[in-house]
Amino acid sequence: MGNLCECLGNFFGRQKNTNVRVSLPAVCFIWQIAMIVLFGIFIRYDEESDVKKWLELKKSENITSNIENDFYFRYPSFQDVHVMIFVGFGFLMTFLKRYSFSGVGFNFLIAAFGLQWALLMQGWFHSLDPVTATISIGIESLINADFCCAGSLIAMGALLGKVSPVQLMVVTLFGVTLFAVEEYIILDLLHCRDAGGSMVIHAFGGYYGLAISWVLYRPKLHQSKSLNGSVYHSDMFAMIGTLFLWMFWPSFNSAITDHGDGQPRAAINTYLALASSVLTAVAISSVSQKKGKLDMVHIQNATLAGGVAMGTAAEFMITPYGSLIVGFCCGIISTFGYLFVTPFLEKTLKLQDTCGIHNLHAVPGMLGGFVGAIVAAFANEDVYGKEGLKRVFDFEGDFANRTPGTQGGFQAAGTCVAIAFGIVGGGVVGLILRLPIWGDPADDNCFDDDVYWEVPEEEEIIPPVLEYNNHMIHKHQDISESNFSVEQS
Amino acid sequence: MGNLCECLGNFFGRQKNTNVRVSLPAVCFIWQIAMIVLFGIFIRYDEESDVKKWLELKKSENITSNIENDFYFRYPSFQDVHVMIFVGFGFLMTFLKRYSFSGVGFNFLIAAFGLQWALLMQGWFHSLDPVTATISIGIESLINADFCCAGSLIAMGALLGKVSPVQLMVVTLFGVTLFAVEEYIILDLLHCRDAGGSMVIHAFGGYYGLAISWVLYRPKLHQSKSLNGSVYHSDMFAMIGTLFLWMFWPSFNSAITDHGDGQPRAAINTYLALASSVLTAVAISSVSQKKGKLDMVHIQNATLAGGVAMGTAAEFMITPYGSLIVGFCCGIISTFGYLFVTPFLEKTLKLQDTCGIHNLHAVPGMLGGFVGAIVAAFANEDVYGKEGLKRVFDFEGDFANRTPGTQGGFQAAGTCVAIAFGIVGGGVVGLILRLPIWGDPADDNCFDDDVYWEVPEEEEIIPPVLEYNNHMIHKHQDISESNFSVEQS
Amino acid sequence: MGNLCECLGNFFGRQKNTNVRVSLPAVCFIWQIAMIVLFGIFIRYDEESDVKKWLELKKSENITSNIENDFYFRYPSFQDVHVMIFVGFGFLMTFLKRYSFSGVGFNFLIAAFGLQWALLMQGWFHSLDPVTATISIGIESLINADFCCAGSLIAMGALLGKVSPVQLMVVTLFGVTLFAVEEYIILDLLHCRDAGGSMVIHAFGGYYGLAISWVLYRPKLHQSKSLNGSVYHSDMFAMIGTLFLWMFWPSFNSAITDHGDGQPRAAINTYLALASSVLTAVAISSVSQKKGKLDMVHIQNATLAGGVAMGTAAEFMITPYGSLIVGFCCGIISTFGYLFVTPFLEKTLKLQDTCGIHNLHAVPGMLGGFVGAIVAAFANEDVYGKEGLKRVFDFEGDFANRTPGTQGGFQAAGTCVAIAFGIVGGGVVGLILRLPIWGDPADDNCFDDDVYWEVPEEEEIIPPVLEYNNHMIHKHQDISESNFSVEQS
Repeated sequence: MGNLCECLGNFFGRQKNTNVRVSLPAVCFIWQIAMIVLFGIFIRYDEESDVKKWLELKKSENITSNIENDFYFRYPSFQDVHVMIFVGFGFLMTFLKRYSFSGVGFNFLIAAFGLQWALLMQGWFHSLDPVTATISIGIESLINADFCCAGSLIAMGALLGKVSPVQLMVVTLFGVTLFAVEEYIILDLLHCRDAGGSMVIHAFGGYYGLAISWVLYRPKLHQSKSLNGSVYHSDMFAMIGTLFLWMFWPSFNSAITDHGDGQPRAAINTYLALASSVLTAVAISSVSQKKGKLDMVHIQNATLAGGVAMGTAAEFMITPYGSLIVGFCCGIISTFGYLFVTPFLEKTLKLQDTCGIHNLHAVPGMLGGFVGAIVAAFANEDVYGKEGLKRVFDFEGDFANRTPGTQGGFQAAGTCVAIAFGIVGGGVVGLILRLPIWGDPADDNCFDDDVYWEVPEEEEIIPPVLEYNNHMIHKHQDISESNFSVEQS
Repeated sequence: MGNLCECLGNFFGRQKNTNVRVSLPAVCFIWQIAMIVLFGIFIRYDEESDVKKWLELKKSENITSNIENDFYFRYPSFQDVHVMIFVGFGFLMTFLKRYSFSGVGFNFLIAAFGLQWALLMQGWFHSLDPVTATISIGIESLINADFCCAGSLIAMGALLGKVSPVQLMVVTLFGVTLFAVEEYIILDLLHCRDAGGSMVIHAFGGYYGLAISWVLYRPKLHQSKSLNGSVYHSDMFAMIGTLFLWMFWPSFNSAITDHGDGQPRAAINTYLALASSVLTAVAISSVSQKKGKLDMVHIQNATLAGGVAMGTAAEFMITPYGSLIVGFCCGIISTFGYLFVTPFLEKTLKLQDTCGIHNLHAVPGMLGGFVGAIVAAFANEDVYGKEGLKRVFDFEGDFANRTPGTQGGFQAAGTCVAIAFGIVGGGVVGLILRLPIWGDPADDNCFDDDVYWEVPEEEEIIPPVLEYNNHMIHKHQDISESNFSVEQS
Repeated sequence: MGNLCECLGNFFGRQKNTNVRVSLPAVCFIWQIAMIVLFGIFIRYDEESDVKKWLELKKSENITSNIENDFYFRYPSFQDVHVMIFVGFGFLMTFLKRYSFSGVGFNFLIAAFGLQWALLMQGWFHSLDPVTATISIGIESLINADFCCAGSLIAMGALLGKVSPVQLMVVTLFGVTLFAVEEYIILDLLHCRDAGGSMVIHAFGGYYGLAISWVLYRPKLHQSKSLNGSVYHSDMFAMIGTLFLWMFWPSFNSAITDHGDGQPRAAINTYLALASSVLTAVAISSVSQKKGKLDMVHIQNATLAGGVAMGTAAEFMITPYGSLIVGFCCGIISTFGYLFVTPFLEKTLKLQDTCGIHNLHAVPGMLGGFVGAIVAAFANEDVYGKEGLKRVFDFEGDFANRTPGTQGGFQAAGTCVAIAFGIVGGGVVGLILRLPIWGDPADDNCFDDDVYWEVPEEEEIIPPVLEYNNHMIHKHQDISESNFSVEQS
């Protein structure tokens, strides 16, 4: 009976239609046309990238040098962030043996869509001009758009191998939308500081992806087990992603901090936390394995946890050794997550998390939010100076009377908001994705590029001499095939 | 009779001598020595990189801060461009299964030569001091030299796998020379604007390579068909190239634009056009294949078309949605090119274009030239302001009275000049390359690193147990060999 | 008798315990905790990254714009240097067929530790505040810390495949310590200039690694010969390292040079020397091989020699053609080194140098030191101007009366100091590493990731049809295994 069920299951599983020849082009075309129309209505150059406005600004504000243009403060950091989004996230997701095309390719697709949609969503919430009803964009907008995509790319990590590109586009559409709303609540209403996005990017993105993945639970995913792992070279490609993320994380956390002292401080803090994470990730990885052998999964992921956890506090005066401590703890926690929590979640919570974003983004992001709250709460004029306190926490306008203690409370509240948005939003989006129209693969067909890509055929070479050995040839072909399969992996 | 011809053809084909042990070192040594001599005579530091001149300049122009040095405006963009030239172009050309060493290695060689020759050629044409007969170089010169190489690297894309490194050096020597002349005509005489080089780099380089390839047509190239394709990992290496090109294209198009508003505007426009290209390239790729599967060739190439097409207009006030439209159209056109035009050209025009530069550079570059012409023609004081119009189009000196309409006409003329230089120059260079002295491979020997590189041998492992099975061993070895070959591919 | 010895040797060799499950975590944890404590005691933000101090500095020095913060002068170069350290060095060491995980992974580990230790050591020697007994760190400190790591990473190149990660940590601990001392002697006491570290980084690091490797000589290393080589894809990964080193070397040599003219001059000189190296490396590589085939080892390494050799002179007025000449010579010398010197050293001096750092760092570094000495000695007011001479050579304070000639002598002396530190320090560290407690592999177990990493298993696929061929199956499995082995390589 159980056997029969399984057979039926397999049968229906196989029935899944992964043909996206209509849905994928339709989504790409229609959404891109919508972007063009909406950009035409709303998006304009800001005063630092519009020639007329810039010349007027220079006159009106008595700016003597072009170097005062925000471009020169932020463009190098923007490019580092851009590399993290496309090469960092993209290649980090190439670690699966036969899903590298999808890892880097779908990341490319949804980030390219997401950043356009983010410019609109973030513009509407943060910088819509009340008079002209337009949004002015500049370099800082581009950085924020990349940040906004990051939330959805993190979510993709939990879903990797189990969803179709159309589903990923949907994840991104809603992900960016939810991001803009939670960011508005956290940064504008609660007036939190979160320059590197521990809360708004990592905690939100992490729990968003986990919630979706939980709703999309596949009980028979073990049928694709043979492809759910790495091979030697795919691990090397993933290291490209890891290293570019690791190296440029100081730029990520400092990209939109204050001009002047804010940017170097955020960069230094992040640099130190990341260095510290590497050592503890290696230590736990080694101690957990027979003979002390290191596991590439930990090196590829847990070494980055320090950067995630410094997303909020990096711009504060957390002190250099404080940064090291944060990195130290998160390297340990993240590696433990890969060792124990991910398998536990899968078994007990029915939560399948391909890249382990729970350990790299969700938990370190949440911790980062609380670290930020604590550091904010303990801020004082001795360390920051009176003017400095105002400057770092932006205690101005409506918030001029806020104290560091209160700020700490709001920071903690902000973290909870981010998590709540992630879980609830992800749950709803997960339900939408369960509709049988999106072209997702069957349980025994996951983690395979062949479903959505024209994968190059390895050429078939049969040595001529064999052709005269009729008795032998069939078996040889069998063997050859076995080898082909292996190689493709 | 036809059979006899073919035999003779094969015979002579096989006779081809690919030994470059004399010619390649000779070319490298002699040309490098020539560079040293010519640099000794002509090249000097400019006033921003010579300590004496910089201190004098600071005094004479009352410059208060070192940050006003052009280095701080352009160096980050320069490094991005540098990455595009060496990693971007280099790795994009590693997609062939057994030609990756040559793709990245020859790109490295000819770019390293080309940039030196470009500093001289561009110096003679653009910045030769009439008094001292010297050329002053600074960071902007390095960017321009990298740009100038790009023309020849594009041409290399059409020839990939079919020519020797010596031939590529010749392509670069003439390519850089032609580039400097056409650039002088287009930018100085016609006074066109072309910051990102849609015309001078892409249209020229594309048609230059296509013309050479047409002259070097190989009727029996199908004999190397088995190597003219990708394998899984070579496609992944190519994606490294694609992504670095895609991410840094905003730097490419903004690297030499105006300080201040010019650089951010060019970056924003390019960023948007590229994002738009990704979606339409994916859409067309999917709709064109059975079951909607994506083709890596399109993702690797057509996603970049928006950047090429924005090379001229990026610094203009094309508006954000205008940029999206350009990217939208070029993503479609470029993917269609890979699907239909390249095969058509090969069949009917006898034009073999390994990387499909027709679809990525020639056509989008030409379109970019015309887009620039149109945007220039519609420029007006409402949008640019009076001073801004002068600033963007450099209506000064001899050109103070030029109107946007006239400028548009000249831009269009410039595009035609670039194409003409490419086609005629490429034709002549192609004829030179037909001389039988350059060490190019035979038709059945193309696309193979083994011709010009010491390719590492895969070690031969025969399990000891087999040695006792004399009956079996020969066949097993045959199989092993077949597998070795496959793996090497 | 000889046979017996060999047997015993093998026996004891095999006895080597490569289990690092205690030692590696212990070293990582304890040293990281030590870092946190020492950072807590000593390390503070400098006045450009501390909000209170920055606001005070702006007031006291009348700084009108945040762009005057050193961050904006140096951060883009810092990030380029950071990429060189982690991706450049890391991927350059992935060229071995089965040691890529270790190449990139151990590089990551020891650089992450080394940079923390370097901040302390360099701080104590160069910037310890005598009043507060603290060290102030800013962006320039991060660059210097990365530089300081580079010395140990170079040494790792000689040892690659033959030592355990614990040994590499020890190499780094002492390497950074020695570096800080020799740097103090060379830069502070001898008052040498060495912005790109030909002496302090490359000559020191090169001879340090060679001395260690000499002490650790393994007479039976040929037993691992089959793994001491590359395969096609590992060579491609190494090219990623090569190209990022090559492209960003101008940033390396200019990262800590003078604001203003110093940075562009150093960048231009390095860019030219590197271009020149490529051509001569290719020429010698081609002329040395039958049929003129190129060797990837030369392309991966010798093309970089020009950058190493310009480490000292790049910031001087060496002239553009002078830079080309330096690159020209070093490309030749380095390639000759790979062809003849490395094999000679191994045979006669019993010196095993896996990556050939003798040819890429030790010799070009030494030459770079002497080139710097010569260029310094010939400096004069005609070329530099009076003020410029002071500025470039920092003839101020105690050194106000030094002449260029004297400076040249000191530069030469500095080179000798660096080499002496490398050789003596390396000898001592080598002896320490011979203690049998570090978990290094046996002679027949070198160059194999499997010793220290959980290497992904290639899945075993046996086509079902074979299962009915009992007669065949064992042999087939044997073959399959042989193929698995090959593929893994």
